[in-house]
Amino acid sequence: MPSAVLLAGGESKRFWPLKEKGVFDFCGKSFLTIHYEQLKKSGVHTCIVVVNPDTEKNIKSVPVPDGLTVDYAMQHTPGMGSAVAALETFLDNDPVIILNASDWYSDRFISDFFEKSIGKSSLAIGALKVASYFPGGYIRFRNDQTIEEIVEKPKPGSEPSDMVAIVADYFPKATDFITAAKKYGSSDEGGFEYALNKMIQSGHPAHMVEAGSEDWSPLKYPWHVLSVMEKILQTIEKQDIHSSVEIKNNVVIEGPVIIEENVKISEGTKIVGPCYIGKNTIIGNNNLIRSSSIGAGCMTGFNSDITRSYIGANCWFHTNYVGDSVICDNVSMGSGTVSANLRLDDGEIGSMIKGEKVATGRNKLGVIIAENVRIGVNTSIMPGIKIGSGTFIGAGLIVAEDIEEKRFVFEKDGKIQNTANSKNATVSREEFRKKL
Amino acid sequence: MPSAVLLAGGESKRFWPLKEKGVFDFCGKSFLTIHYEQLKKSGVHTCIVVVNPDTEKNIKSVPVPDGLTVDYAMQHTPGMGSAVAALETFLDNDPVIILNASDWYSDRFISDFFEKSIGKSSLAIGALKVASYFPGGYIRFRNDQTIEEIVEKPKPGSEPSDMVAIVADYFPKATDFITAAKKYGSSDEGGFEYALNKMIQSGHPAHMVEAGSEDWSPLKYPWHVLSVMEKILQTIEKQDIHSSVEIKNNVVIEGPVIIEENVKISEGTKIVGPCYIGKNTIIGNNNLIRSSSIGAGCMTGFNSDITRSYIGANCWFHTNYVGDSVICDNVSMGSGTVSANLRLDDGEIGSMIKGEKVATGRNKLGVIIAENVRIGVNTSIMPGIKIGSGTFIGAGLIVAEDIEEKRFVFEKDGKIQNTANSKNATVSREEFRKKL
Amino acid sequence: MPSAVLLAGGESKRFWPLKEKGVFDFCGKSFLTIHYEQLKKSGVHTCIVVVNPDTEKNIKSVPVPDGLTVDYAMQHTPGMGSAVAALETFLDNDPVIILNASDWYSDRFISDFFEKSIGKSSLAIGALKVASYFPGGYIRFRNDQTIEEIVEKPKPGSEPSDMVAIVADYFPKATDFITAAKKYGSSDEGGFEYALNKMIQSGHPAHMVEAGSEDWSPLKYPWHVLSVMEKILQTIEKQDIHSSVEIKNNVVIEGPVIIEENVKISEGTKIVGPCYIGKNTIIGNNNLIRSSSIGAGCMTGFNSDITRSYIGANCWFHTNYVGDSVICDNVSMGSGTVSANLRLDDGEIGSMIKGEKVATGRNKLGVIIAENVRIGVNTSIMPGIKIGSGTFIGAGLIVAEDIEEKRFVFEKDGKIQNTANSKNATVSREEFRKKL
Repeated sequence: MPSAVLLAGGESKRFWPLKEKGVFDFCGKSFLTIHYEQLKKSGVHTCIVVVNPDTEKNIKSVPVPDGLTVDYAMQHTPGMGSAVAALETFLDNDPVIILNASDWYSDRFISDFFEKSIGKSSLAIGALKVASYFPGGYIRFRNDQTIEEIVEKPKPGSEPSDMVAIVADYFPKATDFITAAKKYGSSDEGGFEYALNKMIQSGHPAHMVEAGSEDWSPLKYPWHVLSVMEKILQTIEKQDIHSSVEIKNNVVIEGPVIIEENVKISEGTKIVGPCYIGKNTIIGNNNLIRSSSIGAGCMTGFNSDITRSYIGANCWFHTNYVGDSVICDNVSMGSGTVSANLRLDDGEIGSMIKGEKVATGRNKLGVIIAENVRIGVNTSIMPGIKIGSGTFIGAGLIVAEDIEEKRFVFEKDGKIQNTANSKNATVSREEFRKKL
Repeated sequence: MPSAVLLAGGESKRFWPLKEKGVFDFCGKSFLTIHYEQLKKSGVHTCIVVVNPDTEKNIKSVPVPDGLTVDYAMQHTPGMGSAVAALETFLDNDPVIILNASDWYSDRFISDFFEKSIGKSSLAIGALKVASYFPGGYIRFRNDQTIEEIVEKPKPGSEPSDMVAIVADYFPKATDFITAAKKYGSSDEGGFEYALNKMIQSGHPAHMVEAGSEDWSPLKYPWHVLSVMEKILQTIEKQDIHSSVEIKNNVVIEGPVIIEENVKISEGTKIVGPCYIGKNTIIGNNNLIRSSSIGAGCMTGFNSDITRSYIGANCWFHTNYVGDSVICDNVSMGSGTVSANLRLDDGEIGSMIKGEKVATGRNKLGVIIAENVRIGVNTSIMPGIKIGSGTFIGAGLIVAEDIEEKRFVFEKDGKIQNTANSKNATVSREEFRKKL
Repeated sequence: MPSAVLLAGGESKRFWPLKEKGVFDFCGKSFLTIHYEQLKKSGVHTCIVVVNPDTEKNIKSVPVPDGLTVDYAMQHTPGMGSAVAALETFLDNDPVIILNASDWYSDRFISDFFEKSIGKSSLAIGALKVASYFPGGYIRFRNDQTIEEIVEKPKPGSEPSDMVAIVADYFPKATDFITAAKKYGSSDEGGFEYALNKMIQSGHPAHMVEAGSEDWSPLKYPWHVLSVMEKILQTIEKQDIHSSVEIKNNVVIEGPVIIEENVKISEGTKIVGPCYIGKNTIIGNNNLIRSSSIGAGCMTGFNSDITRSYIGANCWFHTNYVGDSVICDNVSMGSGTVSANLRLDDGEIGSMIKGEKVATGRNKLGVIIAENVRIGVNTSIMPGIKIGSGTFIGAGLIVAEDIEEKRFVFEKDGKIQNTANSKNATVSREEFRKKL
């Protein structure tokens, strides 16, 4: 069984205001744990995680399952050269599988990829079948379906196939990859894909393992949390409700759910799976919870509607509509605050990324909120807005622009003020609740 | 059995932002269909509908029930002269009944009117018993209770009786009416009522058939939709729920309702009749629907309260309060948007009609919204406000003035902007829903 | 059995916008009635209520229970001298108990105080055991636990004990108190406590009767209504639901409650005791009512959440969150209006009293609203805000400052207007409802 490499040393700037994809929790597990468990289930014994100085501490804090050995390779600077240097001492002439810690792969695909690569003398490359243009590396096949080359971002209309390479690669000899990467990775056009393509063009036999749209989901932009969450929720197969869960009268639970210990669900609430609800969370009266993941220690309050949303731990809601939104740990919203999740013209929702409007590919997208944020009552947040950690937002506002970290935004005499926030939300709602 | 004339050639300016009273739908039927069915049930075989160039196409598209023959008389310009010219070729020496296509008449009144007029040699005039002053034509009776004359808008206090003429007239010979109308209808004081009065004053015997307050309701101003709807809803006698309707747990349906095929009603919702719900509509969780008519293909969403309101087809709501409001087809409201339906001082609500404030006679009146309108989240709409078709209204606003057609109203930097709307809401919510 | 004096002649400026503590209703009874019933239960036959010209009329209108005789002593001007002059003609050489009509005492304490004072030759002084500094009169004890003196507002850290005197005093001879009060009460440092202390310092033996935190609650600032209410609600021991109460399906009532005659409770509502609901009140659909007192003739409307709040009579709500709030008679709130009851930083909530910010001692405090107030839809009221009687507040506002009596506050062209209110809310919601 080959070693697996998980690339977790890249930057996360486009993931703002969210942080550290590897330790982002889904359904009570960090994303890395989900990878570890998948690799272990596939028979992998040794895994090398490429970290960087920013992510090292958190990634090393993720517990490793019994039966899996994890080594951490430090990538000191961004880019291919640094990643390869980090890996070199861990790899030898044995085969290696390289996966992206920021991508989600289905069990079906991983199983298929392992089956169709391990033991082969040909390089294997995972690729996604796309229905419309995607700005990635398209595979050109020879007549015998082996790979001739990967064409980076061809002009729309001149794609050589409908298969786009993803980071799922099998090298029969790890050293071949290291060699290629060192040779090409530092060139101007350098990069992982470039080195891989050069290997193929220079004669390494390569074949493709196909992933369908249900098999792969990247975690690049913050709204990708929703598509990864959706994929993970879809793996819940039945109602798995802990025996300690307290369910009051007139509660309806439909579809597959995982509900952890000590959860309380109040009267008049409906839960439509797939859903995950973390331990100690209190779901209030007359709620509607649909296709969402809610972390531990939350209180959803009275009359809340949480739909297709990712909610972290220790969040507080009260009569909110949270739709198609990503909300991190220790966030609270006042009564009547709403995440608008649809444009008036039903058009595709854009979001500012590093100063430029990026099309999100979504017609429905709510708000993305980092941890330790407080929002007052009756505030309206426009679709695709992002809010940085530690920010406080007052009551009755219309939030139509992204808000940075640690800001205090409120209205005074009819004008919106945006000042530095001198207050802390360091006492979590969980702690505050205990004091009451 | 005499022919019946339905006058549908008048203007609808005071009906703005609503259009075309004749084809306005109530409980799944156009207003004209309701007239046709009533006439057919009363034994009428032939009906002449007076149309104008604006209304012709839509009125002709209204299907005619089997057993009723409908002719369309074109009134080319507004006013009496044109209406009579249109009718002349359709009428002869036989008796005729004239009704207003913009007025609602109870079955009881129509039946009574027919019984007390047909076959008589005396002209019959329907009249409404009023409890307080009404700016209409009051009937002066002779001692034998025959009609001496109709006094147009007498000074309050000098009314000759408490009976005000409505458009429900029987002429033993249609030609008498044509003659009088041609003679007097083009004078300065001309008009239907003037010609009628001249006939009576010149010796035509005439008697009155009384209508009570439950028998007649006009459709002149847009808020009249609510009183006509109320009257039509009151004709629902029992619970008529289609066998295909899906009713979830903890749903309570009280009083008379018509619920059409494929309607779904979600948990925790209460429906208090009289109500009409059109086919394929989804009533969401924890709704309260009272004394309202909701068209086909709507979604009322979570936690909505729709009370004494008229809702067209393909509308979307989500946690809204819609009270005493008229909302046309393909309108959507974001979560938390509210129609205020009561002044702070509980006073009579006014509404601007052609630049002047008109007393609506209502202490409770919400919003009147034409078709293809989109409204964002948490917006507050003041009582009696009217919104033109194709308009988009942003989130978190206070809408305190009427908004014209095709506007885009939103807040920017704390100031309300009112600009031309370049976007379309032509894709109905029904279509959009199918795409999701 | 000694006579009891209830001091109700003081000023209520710090109680603004609320009025007249003595006739403030709790759970369907005026505060004075609660005192009368407690005294009667304790065996008192004669009670003297010290009134002032402002409170006389209302206090005299409070019915006196059979078996209790009440005299009213008129205090013409504020201060000790005037109170004593008022009492002098009513008191003689017999013992007397003096209590504050603005303070709540538990039955347990009153019973204990009577037992430990009546018949003794020593002065008895009630005192509250405090856990942290309280700006009051601390008791210095002798070794034998008799009282040596009362130290007014000692410096924090130099308190002579943890017992603070409250107004609960027993004088074996009333004339002793009158004499001391006349001697010391008019001095510069004068006052009730000063005179009392002088008596003790001059040799009158005195002992203390201890009150715990559950035994005493003052009504000084308007938010104190909440703590007094809480104490009174805690005296409800079981579910006492009048036989005429109408309870619809899917209603859950938990814990001790008093629900008076003709109350209606609609579907999907949960009531969590202790709660009091006055007669004829209608609790709407899908409400959550927790630890609150709601007066007679109210309508809570659809989807309201009333938590830890005091609600007067004839109030109307509709989809409101009312938390930790005090709302007087004949107040209405439009749909979506919210009382924010928590600061974004969870900090202690301040409130302006006579131009100065006073710490309320509360982390959770909503709004305090006097009688005859109307508030529009979707308005947000900040924690600790107070609103004077007869004021109207428009829709969609953020209310961040106290509003005086009879104001009309609304938004025009994006700016908040605060003008005199020319309208009246004199027709109560109860009357208005009857007209509908």
